[in-house]
Amino acid sequence: MFEAPKDFNPDFFKSGGLIAAIAQDAESGEILMLAWMNEEAWNATLSTGEAHYWSRSRQKLWHKGESSGNVQKVLAIRLDCDSDAVILEIRQIGDAACHTGRKSCFYRRIVPGSNIAEICSPQIFDPAEVYKK
Amino acid sequence: MFEAPKDFNPDFFKSGGLIAAIAQDAESGEILMLAWMNEEAWNATLSTGEAHYWSRSRQKLWHKGESSGNVQKVLAIRLDCDSDAVILEIRQIGDAACHTGRKSCFYRRIVPGSNIAEICSPQIFDPAEVYKK
Repeated sequence: MFEAPKDFNPDFFKSGGLIAAIAQDAESGEILMLAWMNEEAWNATLSTGEAHYWSRSRQKLWHKGESSGNVQKVLAIRLDCDSDAVILEIRQIGDAACHTGRKSCFYRRIVPGSNIAEICSPQIFDPAEVYKK
Repeated sequence: MFEAPKDFNPDFFKSGGLIAAIAQDAESGEILMLAWMNEEAWNATLSTGEAHYWSRSRQKLWHKGESSGNVQKVLAIRLDCDSDAVILEIRQIGDAACHTGRKSCFYRRIVPGSNIAEICSPQIFDPAEVYKK
């Protein structure tokens, strides 16, 4: 799927084997979530073209959408200057990236002059329905 | 400057006192950089409205742009669902966020079907000139 050239290698050793991975909507530019990748997750993402992360809470490889079907199709990958963070430009199947059913995990927002957090990302699905919990 | 409500508190304890902070161009939506914040950097960002980070390499508070003058004016802040990552919606003074003089730190990009990384973010300044190194 992706063939990363030799000079496009994340540095997994800087942060205990993990890099930060930002999933960005390829069309709108909205930032949907931030998660973590170890080398196994990186290689699985490259070979399948679907986002794989390392779940720090479950301590296991996490194929995003594996239970809900809402996978992330990776259209392009950007690497930062010191090679410890990447952007995945994605198409989110099911439209919602967040486990709360919202489009973006970054759904709370503050601006100067207000002491109330506004909700800035819509609810797409009911998580109780999708995850059958 | 910013008054964060009580339910808008990052969880600094999950990752050894640090949260991930994504700086996003408030106008274009382009992701400019990813850095880290401890509680001191968070509070300094809220009170001044300019991005402050924790430099992991130098182990000190880092007022972005303190040496170059290219500070980041924070227009809004978004917090994610598990409160360990934030987006700073910023206006980048001097237009370049990266120490290489590029607009974005994420200036290398790969797509399926090519084994060459394209350069996707323009050079704005010569770092040798700005940092006088």
